[in-house]
Amino acid sequence: MDLLSIKDPSFLKKMNNAELEGLSEDIRKFLIENLSVTGGHIGPNLGVVELTLALHKCFDSPKDKILWDVGHQSYVHKILTGRAGQFNSLRQYKGLCGFPKMSESEHDVWETGHSSTSLSAAMGMAIARDIKGESSFVVPVIGDGALTGGMALEALNHIGHEQKNMIVLLNDNEMSIAPNVGALHNVLGKLRTAGKYKWAKDELEYLLKKIPAVGGKLASTAERVKDSLKYLLVSGVFFEELGFTYLGPVDGHDFEDLFENLQYAKKTKGPVLLHVITKKGKGYSPAEDDKIGTWHGTGQYKIETGALIKSVNTAPSWSALVSETVRRLAREDERIVAITPAMPVGSKLENFAEEFPERMYDVGIAEQHAATMAAGLASQKMKPFLAIYSTFLQRAYDQVLHDISRQNLNVFLGVDRAGLVGADGETHQGVFDVSFLRHLPNMVLMMPKDENEGQHMVYTAINYNDGPIAMRFPRGNGYGVPMDSQLKEIPIGTWEILKKGKDAAILTFGTTIPMALEAAHLLEKQGVSVQVVNARFIKPLDEEMLHDIFQSRLPVLTIEEAVLQGGFGSAVLEFAHDQGYQNVEIDRIGIPDKFIEHGSVKELLKEIGLTTENIVAKLTSMLPEKKKRA
Amino acid sequence: MDLLSIKDPSFLKKMNNAELEGLSEDIRKFLIENLSVTGGHIGPNLGVVELTLALHKCFDSPKDKILWDVGHQSYVHKILTGRAGQFNSLRQYKGLCGFPKMSESEHDVWETGHSSTSLSAAMGMAIARDIKGESSFVVPVIGDGALTGGMALEALNHIGHEQKNMIVLLNDNEMSIAPNVGALHNVLGKLRTAGKYKWAKDELEYLLKKIPAVGGKLASTAERVKDSLKYLLVSGVFFEELGFTYLGPVDGHDFEDLFENLQYAKKTKGPVLLHVITKKGKGYSPAEDDKIGTWHGTGQYKIETGALIKSVNTAPSWSALVSETVRRLAREDERIVAITPAMPVGSKLENFAEEFPERMYDVGIAEQHAATMAAGLASQKMKPFLAIYSTFLQRAYDQVLHDISRQNLNVFLGVDRAGLVGADGETHQGVFDVSFLRHLPNMVLMMPKDENEGQHMVYTAINYNDGPIAMRFPRGNGYGVPMDSQLKEIPIGTWEILKKGKDAAILTFGTTIPMALEAAHLLEKQGVSVQVVNARFIKPLDEEMLHDIFQSRLPVLTIEEAVLQGGFGSAVLEFAHDQGYQNVEIDRIGIPDKFIEHGSVKELLKEIGLTTENIVAKLTSMLPEKKKRA
Repeated sequence: MDLLSIKDPSFLKKMNNAELEGLSEDIRKFLIENLSVTGGHIGPNLGVVELTLALHKCFDSPKDKILWDVGHQSYVHKILTGRAGQFNSLRQYKGLCGFPKMSESEHDVWETGHSSTSLSAAMGMAIARDIKGESSFVVPVIGDGALTGGMALEALNHIGHEQKNMIVLLNDNEMSIAPNVGALHNVLGKLRTAGKYKWAKDELEYLLKKIPAVGGKLASTAERVKDSLKYLLVSGVFFEELGFTYLGPVDGHDFEDLFENLQYAKKTKGPVLLHVITKKGKGYSPAEDDKIGTWHGTGQYKIETGALIKSVNTAPSWSALVSETVRRLAREDERIVAITPAMPVGSKLENFAEEFPERMYDVGIAEQHAATMAAGLASQKMKPFLAIYSTFLQRAYDQVLHDISRQNLNVFLGVDRAGLVGADGETHQGVFDVSFLRHLPNMVLMMPKDENEGQHMVYTAINYNDGPIAMRFPRGNGYGVPMDSQLKEIPIGTWEILKKGKDAAILTFGTTIPMALEAAHLLEKQGVSVQVVNARFIKPLDEEMLHDIFQSRLPVLTIEEAVLQGGFGSAVLEFAHDQGYQNVEIDRIGIPDKFIEHGSVKELLKEIGLTTENIVAKLTSMLPEKKKRA
Repeated sequence: MDLLSIKDPSFLKKMNNAELEGLSEDIRKFLIENLSVTGGHIGPNLGVVELTLALHKCFDSPKDKILWDVGHQSYVHKILTGRAGQFNSLRQYKGLCGFPKMSESEHDVWETGHSSTSLSAAMGMAIARDIKGESSFVVPVIGDGALTGGMALEALNHIGHEQKNMIVLLNDNEMSIAPNVGALHNVLGKLRTAGKYKWAKDELEYLLKKIPAVGGKLASTAERVKDSLKYLLVSGVFFEELGFTYLGPVDGHDFEDLFENLQYAKKTKGPVLLHVITKKGKGYSPAEDDKIGTWHGTGQYKIETGALIKSVNTAPSWSALVSETVRRLAREDERIVAITPAMPVGSKLENFAEEFPERMYDVGIAEQHAATMAAGLASQKMKPFLAIYSTFLQRAYDQVLHDISRQNLNVFLGVDRAGLVGADGETHQGVFDVSFLRHLPNMVLMMPKDENEGQHMVYTAINYNDGPIAMRFPRGNGYGVPMDSQLKEIPIGTWEILKKGKDAAILTFGTTIPMALEAAHLLEKQGVSVQVVNARFIKPLDEEMLHDIFQSRLPVLTIEEAVLQGGFGSAVLEFAHDQGYQNVEIDRIGIPDKFIEHGSVKELLKEIGLTTENIVAKLTSMLPEKKKRA
């Protein structure tokens, strides 16, 4: 059918299974074609085509609330709710968001991006429904990977206790972003291999067969019995014990199976967990065959071959630079242990894992545990390297504060995807870390100007023994600068003058250095001499250099790809006033007090005024009149 | 025995059970007597006397690592490790800390305060041990309440998967801080009532008895069998499925039972969960009989009667003021739902719970879930009031950011115990919230000057419909000011001039207002006229008033009982420079860039310079010379 003609999902009610299968085909074709041009989360969406159709046929959205945990698997839902025509703008500036978005559709009842939030939100919705005396279904859809996140487990515990009506769809694909880790995944794995399962006559017969002859030699066979009991009873016991009615496992690509169980779930009182087995990438062989998560989310690709169309930038990615430098150092230093919360591929830790399997821990989606485990390692004089995206570090804020900073432990935080991340949008922008790390006592926070300085910073971090040290670095690739072969330590709290100047000073770090230099060169041509400082340590500041600058009464412009509230520029303001420099001109450019949506980083930088032009304009307005005219 | 003579726990090795029982008596007597004078966490410590003795007899601390989750139950451990003589200074300024503290003893291998961190830390220590090729036991002791915290569940999942040697002591008392909530607690409850239990012959016989006659009528009896199987197999299945060897339940006050199981645990490969049942307050009847958590932590009390010696301040507590005002409003507004993460007593929500049981949710120790559940409620046009301590709100930072602020949902955060909390010390000081809430887009943050303004702020928050709004308020009691009977809205972002002045301005909020006023009055006598502003909105600022102040070129002093980095003073600096007021004098007083230990709030304020004297001195140094001499 013509997907562009879909206005809302009501048409599904009249479709039979054969028609739904045809529609599934059409949707898969649409997704594979569109995403080959725009890129996007192809694997997760191909996996939930039938599941999404089944949900929208069985439930009445938006009266019934369907919540997509993480949300990158909501494309089919977007198609069914009238947004097929916008897929050519997917994840692009002002275009269709890659995650649920209330402003796009009334069917998007909950916005996601970070994982494991859907169950808590669903609990809130179920409570609201019951207080209002309304009648509707609340249906969170959560993956097996997201289920290992602590807040999802907190929610499961509470939902089971309260016994509110709710239908939790556990979307169990064999892989979340990377192969899942953790015992909970083992439990799900056993369920998966156990084949179809319902609490009924079958198991009981099975159970009885497994129990050895009654009487006699019981003690000696206890172990064996225990194992077979476990094998049997694991199926659902985990969830049943928490208070859920467990249904499944159900084949998530079989409409008959899905409908039967969804109808049963709708009739069941109290919370239901419906366990659905799906295959990521279903229907597109390159994505189906994916073992390591390449097809979780992609850029452009050739449909026929599944060949990814690479970007022209051949410089190493920042993630690779950092992880590979840590690996190099780990050869000489047995104390180094790498930790990732479910992002071994994104953080480019595959080589580290291969070379040092006993010193590499992927803990699953469990940022809090990752941070405190790092603290535990550091308490034993190890050198933990926690590779974590800036946006996900938010979830470990208390652990970084209470366990790492407060105990002043030598943890190296590799804060990846810091700054604007582009297409993933507002849930994933890494723009708060400067503000939330800077106010933690004992914390050192730095950001390199290029890959070469980056490798020296990694070396500096590993050799730092006075407490926690964080290095933030951007998403994407470096500049391809020449690399020193010898690593060296950068003295903590020292900045670097990149260009001298006597009319004004720019203080900035990381990604905004090139535009600062460009602005300075443009002004140079107008006779204005601007100093550009690589303020590579955000904390501690280079106080000596700041004294020099303020004593020479240069107007100062700070620039940061991070929120302005409580950020680096504020640190400079605090320093100036604490030190009694009351009559200095300080201005700041950075991310304003709002959430920044998706788009290319370049477009977003322009939107918020992080541009060479704006720097020139700002500086010009700060200069004494004679300079402006020069 | 003379507890003061204990230097380290090695003497326990030679003691027999009868001697240990005698020692337990001595320790209980010591605790009851000492804490009647100093106050402290009496209930939790009386509950773990035998358990702590057993651990220190069976393990070799500090080679073996004993980690106390939360840590308020570490008093017996402190006595056994040579600190009995310091108990007269417990929780006092420069005295013995109420939580584990590395600087006090090598036996304190991990510092706690916030709950649920011990398992992650233990995992880090176990990994470190194995990489180093050392041999030692890692023994986290965690309560059933702390086990509902998401990060503990993340850790259980990972520990079960990795199969490192570790002995987890689950200290299951019938009550954490308040009666535990959640399905996990139900599981533990079933274990508790099931009596002694070991995976062995016994259960198998029990199982076989419960199974109905083999053959025939199986389908019809399936349900019954399922229940009995569940009843049996719940015991440990939850933990066994996660990969632990489950031992117990063990009577935590029976040395023989404890030793037998601890010895077995020491011989077991992989992670062991030893389930120990203890009674909070054991051996002191007022604490044993406690049903609601009064004896969790107390001030002074009379030993004979168990009567608590109340403070002379009879003004209502801030918690009561806020919760009771919300209750009053809830009578007229069905949308109001109160949520607490395990602090119904501390947050004074008992009356609310009684009057509106269907609109009150204690979610257990689960701050992340609490925050996002509040967001879920708000998404359905409800008015959630999340009562949460400032220090524990840290754990929900990402949820407040990603789920509440980003979706701009009308959640009312009641940020209790904001500012210095005193005796609980550095893990509990509520001094970061201004900095971590202020940089969140859409957030309104306020703090009242007294109870009367406090009740109006609650009213304001409940009636605010433009996004999240947080009201911070201190620990302890109000001033006993007269209360308006009619509630009114305070216009968002408006400050109040408490005292006019033309020589300088103090901008401050909440607890520091009285000292600001006192300083202003002292200066008045010296002929210096200081304006004092109740800057009750930390975000948004009162821009109109700030323009007035800066245009009249008054030197400005900001004062806050919160960290200076990125705090309120920084917001004023940011405003001044953003608005082009470059030549104004702004100085800030607040909490410096370090963690503040325990002590009375007054002592701590003095230590960090939050005093009338320091305000006078600061202001004097900021005034033009002629004023200083006046």
